[in-house]
Amino acid sequence: MTNASPAECTLAHIRGAHARIKDKIHRTPVMTSETLDQTSGGKLFFKCENLQKIGAFKARGATNAVFSLSDDEARRGVVTHSSGNHAAALARAARLRGIPAYIVMPNNSPQAKQASVKRQGGKIEFCEPTIQAREAAATRLFAETGAAFVHPYDNVNVIAGQGTATLELLEDVPTLDIILCPVGGGGLISGTAIAAKGLKPSIDVVGVEPVGADDAFQSFHSGQLQGVAHPNTIADGLRGKLSERTFAIIRQNVDDIVTVSEQSIVQAMRSIWEILKIIVEPSGAVAYAALVEGKIDIRGGNVGLILTGGNLDLDELPWTKV
Amino acid sequence: MTNASPAECTLAHIRGAHARIKDKIHRTPVMTSETLDQTSGGKLFFKCENLQKIGAFKARGATNAVFSLSDDEARRGVVTHSSGNHAAALARAARLRGIPAYIVMPNNSPQAKQASVKRQGGKIEFCEPTIQAREAAATRLFAETGAAFVHPYDNVNVIAGQGTATLELLEDVPTLDIILCPVGGGGLISGTAIAAKGLKPSIDVVGVEPVGADDAFQSFHSGQLQGVAHPNTIADGLRGKLSERTFAIIRQNVDDIVTVSEQSIVQAMRSIWEILKIIVEPSGAVAYAALVEGKIDIRGGNVGLILTGGNLDLDELPWTKV
Repeated sequence: MTNASPAECTLAHIRGAHARIKDKIHRTPVMTSETLDQTSGGKLFFKCENLQKIGAFKARGATNAVFSLSDDEARRGVVTHSSGNHAAALARAARLRGIPAYIVMPNNSPQAKQASVKRQGGKIEFCEPTIQAREAAATRLFAETGAAFVHPYDNVNVIAGQGTATLELLEDVPTLDIILCPVGGGGLISGTAIAAKGLKPSIDVVGVEPVGADDAFQSFHSGQLQGVAHPNTIADGLRGKLSERTFAIIRQNVDDIVTVSEQSIVQAMRSIWEILKIIVEPSGAVAYAALVEGKIDIRGGNVGLILTGGNLDLDELPWTKV
Repeated sequence: MTNASPAECTLAHIRGAHARIKDKIHRTPVMTSETLDQTSGGKLFFKCENLQKIGAFKARGATNAVFSLSDDEARRGVVTHSSGNHAAALARAARLRGIPAYIVMPNNSPQAKQASVKRQGGKIEFCEPTIQAREAAATRLFAETGAAFVHPYDNVNVIAGQGTATLELLEDVPTLDIILCPVGGGGLISGTAIAAKGLKPSIDVVGVEPVGADDAFQSFHSGQLQGVAHPNTIADGLRGKLSERTFAIIRQNVDDIVTVSEQSIVQAMRSIWEILKIIVEPSGAVAYAALVEGKIDIRGGNVGLILTGGNLDLDELPWTKV
């Protein structure tokens, strides 16, 4: 195998990932808004990964993982479990490489995310919406097909791919003082923090998590990896829990983790829709929710925010539900 | 007066407008989508004026008009009537120049558009939702304040400003074969057609209009300027009627005008939200609606579409109404 996974993710791996994937993904725009700057008291730079291929940053990690496989590893396809965006991203990357993608999805995944996987040619297998059921189904498919397992976040090549968003962001806006990033399983914030600290050690990297799925917040502040038995948040992309690997990276590279309420997430999402005129899903609005809620003192600084994705059912918007 | 209006709009005026306004507006992105290309059978390039300042292309024309005034003309402010986007654009341009803006708005304008005018510091005067009432109120304000009247479309400097979107689009995508543009009062398509034909005479410029407000379609095909007594369309930005000036420009520079149904407009709008992940208002989706409806044979060509704006009430989406 010429493409063996590195044991640990570094800035060099993230640069390698960017070279590998940059012609297969969008270089997403960085948006600004005088109105949101006035509201927040800082200068905000939104990295619009909702405008990424398949509508989420997950295109980066999945594409890097699939194209890091040797021909021999790739031959029988790839398999994963995912609430949605990683699934569509892996299906797309597999299609680009001409190999099959087997996708385990919780049976309560949003319709828009299921449709996106199908559009990319992924083969969906539904399971109960628990982490145990997801992992069991993926393990079985792995055994049946011999496909390479690409974990949605506990994978060095995936983490390196996710970090490429921050490479681009800091290239476009080198004056950033702080980067705010949602935390689910920790893949994005791991890549974000490694890229940011590698390029600019003085920068602050702060994770933001829904209070109803605050395993990373609890783990970070207690120093012990902890889980939340029944994550409960509208931010469906952030219900996963940290792995040993992502927890270790976060402890080493992240400055703080804060939580936000469901109300702040919906308010942040609506402000982004109304003012920036772009669609973010609830998970994608979580970083900005920390500013809506006043959880972070940005002291007039230059703030990068990763808008992670824009896939949701337009018939079920949080402000039109009865 | 050193800034007298030109009698006629030319490519040179549009270039002058761009030089005048380019540091006061966004250079909006041009978005593409493999999914929408596959559906339409061409290569589509969406000029995202919904991501423009105040969420609409109207920022271009209003800014050019306000900054084309001499100091003496500008001193007592500006006045206009508008269903919304031109209003917010004029209020913003006046704020940038430090002069008052008096805005006549129909009393059924969307809340989001009213809020946008207020955010920009415009002074709103409401009127009945007819063109006659709008013009009467604006004339009265003009008499009372001495403010300079900036018509939303029947104004050479406004038309030149609107044309700057196409300058940028053709600079980014010189290979375009056709440009599709919504038609309301005709200011945007006038600037679009003058810019497009001036830069690339072989390009086709096609106007698209809601069937319930098809005065431009009827006028274009009959050769006589015609009105629609009671325009009825969800595309609230396209209810205006052509002026003698915009009709003359259209006759000279536009290749065709087609109409689209309300259903196609809503379907186009939803596809843009779902696939491009950006917010367009109904008027903004009208150009793409012509492709949804199969009204234009694009023969696999490179198609530019102007997405005109993204301001609408998020509580009243056409697919969540009872």
